[in-house]
Amino acid sequence: MWPAQLNRGSIAHPEKMKSKTDILVHFGLRVRELRTQNGMSQEQLAFKAGVHRTYIGMIERAEKNVTLISIEKLANALGVSITTLFE
Amino acid sequence: MWPAQLNRGSIAHPEKMKSKTDILVHFGLRVRELRTQNGMSQEQLAFKAGVHRTYIGMIERAEKNVTLISIEKLANALGVSITTLFE
Repeated sequence: MWPAQLNRGSIAHPEKMKSKTDILVHFGLRVRELRTQNGMSQEQLAFKAGVHRTYIGMIERAEKNVTLISIEKLANALGVSITTLFE
Repeated sequence: MWPAQLNRGSIAHPEKMKSKTDILVHFGLRVRELRTQNGMSQEQLAFKAGVHRTYIGMIERAEKNVTLISIEKLANALGVSITTLFE
């Protein structure tokens, strides 16, 4: 369920009003989706990706503007390609 | 020809050092490829993406661990999806 504050954009210009954090929300939800499909906890994914255990929660809550090297670590740890993270 | 400074790997762990930057090199080459296909200069792409004009050069030389928000800006400015940047 989309958190209330993420009611993205006005009807008139949905793309224009697309805030810059949309991509972070989309990415966070995708990581959560793939993680849970793998039956992994946030700690397990963090350990496998070699990142701090709280980092995964921050990514899933769109609190982190994740870097490319971290994106690759997550993809590897989830066993998917980087493109799959953006589908 | 790979720029000399990209040969940054210690003898002991060449794979570890090499793999960490491989994704940046791959991404940089892809941005350059798409930019030149669009007939854009680095300055034109920087202007369109809303980033500093030197930023594009740094990305193309794999000197920047680019963030997700910047990745989206680049994709939009190049007129492609984010997944296309990783194909």
